[in-house]
Amino acid sequence: MNSMYEILMDLPLFQGVSRDKLSELIEKTPFHFLKYSNGQEIIAANSNCTHMKFIISGKVTIETQCRNLKIKLYENLSSPNVLGPDYLFGRTTAYPFAAYANGDCGILQISKSDYINILQSDNVFLFNMLNVISRNSQRYSDKLLSLSTGSVAERLAFFITSLTQRTGTGIKISFKQKDMCTLLGIQRSSFINTMNKLQENGLITFTMSEIEVHNREDFLNIVHSNE
Amino acid sequence: MNSMYEILMDLPLFQGVSRDKLSELIEKTPFHFLKYSNGQEIIAANSNCTHMKFIISGKVTIETQCRNLKIKLYENLSSPNVLGPDYLFGRTTAYPFAAYANGDCGILQISKSDYINILQSDNVFLFNMLNVISRNSQRYSDKLLSLSTGSVAERLAFFITSLTQRTGTGIKISFKQKDMCTLLGIQRSSFINTMNKLQENGLITFTMSEIEVHNREDFLNIVHSNE
Repeated sequence: MNSMYEILMDLPLFQGVSRDKLSELIEKTPFHFLKYSNGQEIIAANSNCTHMKFIISGKVTIETQCRNLKIKLYENLSSPNVLGPDYLFGRTTAYPFAAYANGDCGILQISKSDYINILQSDNVFLFNMLNVISRNSQRYSDKLLSLSTGSVAERLAFFITSLTQRTGTGIKISFKQKDMCTLLGIQRSSFINTMNKLQENGLITFTMSEIEVHNREDFLNIVHSNE
Repeated sequence: MNSMYEILMDLPLFQGVSRDKLSELIEKTPFHFLKYSNGQEIIAANSNCTHMKFIISGKVTIETQCRNLKIKLYENLSSPNVLGPDYLFGRTTAYPFAAYANGDCGILQISKSDYINILQSDNVFLFNMLNVISRNSQRYSDKLLSLSTGSVAERLAFFITSLTQRTGTGIKISFKQKDMCTLLGIQRSSFINTMNKLQENGLITFTMSEIEVHNREDFLNIVHSNE
């Protein structure tokens, strides 16, 4: 069983921070620890990001929905992790996804103003934050510039890997088939052909309304990304 | 003619800073002012980002190249602007583009360590930086989640608007036609059809190896983005 310190020091935005610095921080800063039980909503889709939210125990399911098509993408993120760090700042501070507890889970949240104080208190926090959000920005253009086959599989892989995290598991897409064909710009027959091939190769399991991704890494290979 | 102060205060990362604060900064921090003449290389593709580079006069042409396809995307950025702010931190600090002076132009560069000191000296600098790179990260997922028609025009618009800036002008793509068809996942005939339609509607001018985008805004409308 990890101590709370160890858990916090493993969080992406607190990495490399000394234990002394961390205990100083915990004394000064209001750290809110919240408990959620299976299925409870942690973040409502399109709600405003006012706190930096960390998963400190258990698992969270992220649900991202296309605006104009009946397509939903799911992934699970496990502790230690951070939820949508690129929505605390920027043009919009509305989360483009919803988040639900997957089993019991614990969330640490820090208000934006307190988090800004943390960023200014030590270079390590600042570097972690700048690295995390720069990395998010870089991974999209990296994928886009790496495209090479124009295949349906590549297009699907681009969609999946762009909208999920490196540490995401249990990735699946639920869809209206017509809308999935629209997203990929193809006929129903090519869609079924591609899904059959991906299933034969062990990359996915699919039904008429759902694709289950076995391993995100396989899809990163399809888009030639080494993120 | 704008004074140097006015130019600096218009830079995306210096906005909202007081004149006093800025003159204090200029005294303390090594600001390097560089002059380039037409066609001179400012940034080599894949070179390491070691400085924050600002355009303080004139115009810069950005050339972004696909890794696996013979496709190059060009855009012009004018003063006041910043070049690739999301590559100073993150997973990779290699610029994915080259930059050339388009006519005479002036660049201000600040080393990474000096820039970090600036970020820590005042909240305004820090907020500007966090806003600029968070925004870059958000604009990709926003476009991806807004897709709605799956058309070739939408796919082209996604490619163009994802890889260019809001203030980018003179956007064009030069390509080997086979590779452009691969990128878009279509046959030569659909490619020509779409290009003809876009040209008839006044959105582009195209030849067998080049597409000239008249107005980036038109392409944002195609992907339903209001970035």
